[in-house]
Amino acid sequence: MDELKIALVGCGMIGKQHIDRIQNRIKGATVVAVCDVFEAGAKAAAEIAGPGTKVYTDSAEAINDPDVNAVVVTTPGQFHKIPILQAIAAGKPVFTEKPLTNTAAECKEIVDAEMASGKHLVQVGFMRRYDRGYNQVKELIDDGKFGAPMILKCTHRADGVAEDYTTAMAVTDTAIHEIDVLPWLINDEWDEVQCIMPKTSSKAHAGLKDPQVMIMKTKTGIVTMLEVNVNCGFGYDINCEVVCENGVINLPCPSFPTVRFANNVSTKIEDNWILRFMDSYDVEIQDWVDHALKGETGGSSAWDGYVASITADALVASQTSGKAEKVVTGGTPDFYKK
Amino acid sequence: MDELKIALVGCGMIGKQHIDRIQNRIKGATVVAVCDVFEAGAKAAAEIAGPGTKVYTDSAEAINDPDVNAVVVTTPGQFHKIPILQAIAAGKPVFTEKPLTNTAAECKEIVDAEMASGKHLVQVGFMRRYDRGYNQVKELIDDGKFGAPMILKCTHRADGVAEDYTTAMAVTDTAIHEIDVLPWLINDEWDEVQCIMPKTSSKAHAGLKDPQVMIMKTKTGIVTMLEVNVNCGFGYDINCEVVCENGVINLPCPSFPTVRFANNVSTKIEDNWILRFMDSYDVEIQDWVDHALKGETGGSSAWDGYVASITADALVASQTSGKAEKVVTGGTPDFYKK
Amino acid sequence: MDELKIALVGCGMIGKQHIDRIQNRIKGATVVAVCDVFEAGAKAAAEIAGPGTKVYTDSAEAINDPDVNAVVVTTPGQFHKIPILQAIAAGKPVFTEKPLTNTAAECKEIVDAEMASGKHLVQVGFMRRYDRGYNQVKELIDDGKFGAPMILKCTHRADGVAEDYTTAMAVTDTAIHEIDVLPWLINDEWDEVQCIMPKTSSKAHAGLKDPQVMIMKTKTGIVTMLEVNVNCGFGYDINCEVVCENGVINLPCPSFPTVRFANNVSTKIEDNWILRFMDSYDVEIQDWVDHALKGETGGSSAWDGYVASITADALVASQTSGKAEKVVTGGTPDFYKK
Amino acid sequence: MDELKIALVGCGMIGKQHIDRIQNRIKGATVVAVCDVFEAGAKAAAEIAGPGTKVYTDSAEAINDPDVNAVVVTTPGQFHKIPILQAIAAGKPVFTEKPLTNTAAECKEIVDAEMASGKHLVQVGFMRRYDRGYNQVKELIDDGKFGAPMILKCTHRADGVAEDYTTAMAVTDTAIHEIDVLPWLINDEWDEVQCIMPKTSSKAHAGLKDPQVMIMKTKTGIVTMLEVNVNCGFGYDINCEVVCENGVINLPCPSFPTVRFANNVSTKIEDNWILRFMDSYDVEIQDWVDHALKGETGGSSAWDGYVASITADALVASQTSGKAEKVVTGGTPDFYKK
Repeated sequence: MDELKIALVGCGMIGKQHIDRIQNRIKGATVVAVCDVFEAGAKAAAEIAGPGTKVYTDSAEAINDPDVNAVVVTTPGQFHKIPILQAIAAGKPVFTEKPLTNTAAECKEIVDAEMASGKHLVQVGFMRRYDRGYNQVKELIDDGKFGAPMILKCTHRADGVAEDYTTAMAVTDTAIHEIDVLPWLINDEWDEVQCIMPKTSSKAHAGLKDPQVMIMKTKTGIVTMLEVNVNCGFGYDINCEVVCENGVINLPCPSFPTVRFANNVSTKIEDNWILRFMDSYDVEIQDWVDHALKGETGGSSAWDGYVASITADALVASQTSGKAEKVVTGGTPDFYKK
Repeated sequence: MDELKIALVGCGMIGKQHIDRIQNRIKGATVVAVCDVFEAGAKAAAEIAGPGTKVYTDSAEAINDPDVNAVVVTTPGQFHKIPILQAIAAGKPVFTEKPLTNTAAECKEIVDAEMASGKHLVQVGFMRRYDRGYNQVKELIDDGKFGAPMILKCTHRADGVAEDYTTAMAVTDTAIHEIDVLPWLINDEWDEVQCIMPKTSSKAHAGLKDPQVMIMKTKTGIVTMLEVNVNCGFGYDINCEVVCENGVINLPCPSFPTVRFANNVSTKIEDNWILRFMDSYDVEIQDWVDHALKGETGGSSAWDGYVASITADALVASQTSGKAEKVVTGGTPDFYKK
Repeated sequence: MDELKIALVGCGMIGKQHIDRIQNRIKGATVVAVCDVFEAGAKAAAEIAGPGTKVYTDSAEAINDPDVNAVVVTTPGQFHKIPILQAIAAGKPVFTEKPLTNTAAECKEIVDAEMASGKHLVQVGFMRRYDRGYNQVKELIDDGKFGAPMILKCTHRADGVAEDYTTAMAVTDTAIHEIDVLPWLINDEWDEVQCIMPKTSSKAHAGLKDPQVMIMKTKTGIVTMLEVNVNCGFGYDINCEVVCENGVINLPCPSFPTVRFANNVSTKIEDNWILRFMDSYDVEIQDWVDHALKGETGGSSAWDGYVASITADALVASQTSGKAEKVVTGGTPDFYKK
Repeated sequence: MDELKIALVGCGMIGKQHIDRIQNRIKGATVVAVCDVFEAGAKAAAEIAGPGTKVYTDSAEAINDPDVNAVVVTTPGQFHKIPILQAIAAGKPVFTEKPLTNTAAECKEIVDAEMASGKHLVQVGFMRRYDRGYNQVKELIDDGKFGAPMILKCTHRADGVAEDYTTAMAVTDTAIHEIDVLPWLINDEWDEVQCIMPKTSSKAHAGLKDPQVMIMKTKTGIVTMLEVNVNCGFGYDINCEVVCENGVINLPCPSFPTVRFANNVSTKIEDNWILRFMDSYDVEIQDWVDHALKGETGGSSAWDGYVASITADALVASQTSGKAEKVVTGGTPDFYKK
């Protein structure tokens, strides 16, 4: 393949961002078709994509268009399964935004379909694996000078959340990023996870337990302590500290000028996740395109998406049980072993 | 009283340091007598204290010397009880290095004796309450602008430990400082504590579990996550992050020049606890002297020392049980309420 | 124009980097021809560019190839003039690495040729104008909250330099970046510049005066103090502090993990300028492509290149005279006013 | 001598602070007499000093009181000379706040008197020599690992100044601290100094040139660039960067908690010089007492005070001449050589 000719399915906010990204900053790919069940949304997206972009309201038609040789899925999570399975059926590479799907059972269907197809076609959009900082940290860990990681301390803080954000979403929408990126970072797998509820913030809306503390142990015994805090009120703040045998490594914060003003030396905290991971999205999509052009996938696989889903289910169970819950995946199939 | 005339009991390393401190930097106090069961040790200490210092090998004699009006106890922890009780019996103010004693039962004896005496005479040397950084953090918390604390994240790292350091000492010798200082910092009391064991460092000597993670909940639901890591290999490193409803406060690190050298911008980490808390010791002893001259005590009381002991016992129990253990103190007696 | 089809002239190190960049990361442009007086060098570059790339040893032929619609000049500075003038003559947009040329007289020839052509065709590769950090600083300055800039403090440090690096090159090769970027940053023009020689580093090779201090005043009276220090031995270290009436703004350092190791908290300093400004080069070339496709130029103009050259000459004169020297440009022609 | 019994002359703000300091935190010294030409001021100071403190309005009487064996001078600078000469005449150690006196001629008189007395009696209160940060920097320089210093970059910023603060006072009141501390820091002497005036801040009151840039060269060729900026509006901010052959050393900032709040990570800048150098004053006075009890002086000598005065005169001359001005001291007398 010389160039990806992409059908993008799901024309909401992140979908439009990816269209702009692909048309203007990604080498080797063009969005040639857009699809949304709401035709108006699809048409608006087509305008961003530029003249000549085809407009669909049915994902099967879009994906099976002979001018299309690759698929990007940016619908809401509960509608991921169908277009992903359609892309697998068509033998076309598919990049889907995270999560793979909303339930472990659906994730399993996709994993099974991909294995049955015999080809690696699915990449899941956990963009942190493409964040420069996480990659710098991984390089330092893999270098060996710091020794084995023993403890991870992470924070995932957001300025605030919408009224419909639930206690479970602290896991499924928020911690899901750490659930995927940390095992990749430390070359390990989750074994047991537990959710502890501290005093709730007076800024959390009624019914929401926020902040939450998640204690997650890997198979080799590395302990992660994760603070999820989605009403912190001071920006979008992601931190990750890796305590190794010989030293400690901290994820860098985004780079902003340091200023002296009003009796403070200060540096800005990023406003939101879109800005925080803007660069990672660019690298991620370019990497997907580069892999897809060679018939490969990069980043998180369908299996990774399934494991993330299983782990999230265990954490959500712990929110109620208060106990540590086991993460049972059944073991990585050979197809997904690296 | 115009001046404290001190008998110092226990002439080891920290004892000699306090003698030097009191003779050269503390206003309103002089060491007039030193005592050690090893006469040679006492004599060496007397030389530091200066000409005319009396030398004792029996603490009762030293404490009851009519020229003495105050006592400093710097023996090993298991020998604290007797000189403290002797000082209480003599009605003389007594500063004892931490811990109050090595068992909760002995601590209780001292608490009971002090209450029976009707006078506040005992101050326990938890020097972190005098650390400038902790006081700056406390001021910011108490100011209210940051809202209620919800989560505390602490690290207590030491370069390395002697061969006789045990898994239990991670609590009784090391975490004991956080056990005392954190409730003071956040105006709360411990409710439940748990010890989690991550992968053990290859640098820990045989039989020692290191690092350890301690999860400690207060009565109002604040959750503390404490990393104890005594073979970290990179210095003595104390951190404390207070996650409040509106912001996050971090304990400052000790102040060293920032240097650019060999492809790094770096700042020194303090070598050991003596240097790290040198200033706090000065402030602590001066504050004890200032209080004692007015017939008062400052800092940690005998009751605080007892509560720390009870809490440490619960954490040590959790090291074996793996479960959260309750901290049961029976409630603060009126005598110790502030 | 739909796509830039580029002839790249000068296949040395930076030339090859731009080929790789354009072929793999830049949207809307392809290198279709490469040119070097050394045919072997051109052929090696053509392999990086990919199959079908034309190979030239004569820049006129390359530039006038009808398949070519844009030019990138990456020869050594003393050979910039001819291909730039050829591109202007051909009416094709040309991006040249800095400096525009090696002498003010040659720069003037290019400026005159471009004005005569009536079209903005020349962009000079001062990549710092595309550095995210400088742009963040500029945004804060332009925002107005900090008030007028009054003093700038800059450092330009390199690990070391080759034996043929001369005292004058501290200006023409090194400070030239600050000479271009600072007036852009603070919306001002140089008025008077002076070079002061401190004690020379024992690490500077014989005959080289290093470090140097440059004091540069703008027309509105802003004073810049620039340390040029090309044998610093600890990496490539660029700093810029803008002292404004109400506050101070510091250019961010590149983002690396902070680590605790061997009694230090440290962060890496970048090794060299290529890595330090890698991202800026990407943004710069993409911006040039985006502008060129619309018949425009971005970044530094030929006039900016000429002014930089005049300013550098004044600084070099001051290296000998020891006095402040005036920067005389004759005023910006209307053609270049923004 | 066992204890300093001090007559303090000049009962203004800094005088009262020193009384409080000496009575409550300094070992080995007591203020036994206070003196001020305004009796009410002296009486107020005596209350701080405590019962039994003698009150004088004539410095000769205070200094010659047989109960007095040491003198502290805290009058305004123009009244320093007389009590210092009286103390020398009485053979009693005298600590004077900076500057030694307001003119080089008066400084010379004191130097001559002290040499004639044959005893080192005078210590000048340049407290920065006692600042922990400057001492840490000096230790790193003297260690040798960083190589020879070549460039110093300093800032001396104050939040704002009173209406009667003049352009000359930027040197005599403000830069005077750097004038004294830097030669001590780098083991060198001033050779030539120059004042450059950038654009004036709109916040400076009419007639005041602020900020100012001072370029100061030492005998061995080290170049200092000092920003004096006394209307910065964001606190009291002292920085010092030492560029050495192998690395760069930065003076630490005062230690405050780092906080996350309102989209910023920030650390407080100290409000004013009293708080910034509070600790240094304590160390300074204790060191003077410790020296005086042994018949010695520490810190800055009368000769250092004289040299600072000569240097300040040269800088003030340059404020008008715009040229570099030589610092001519005539060479350190043997009496003051270390």
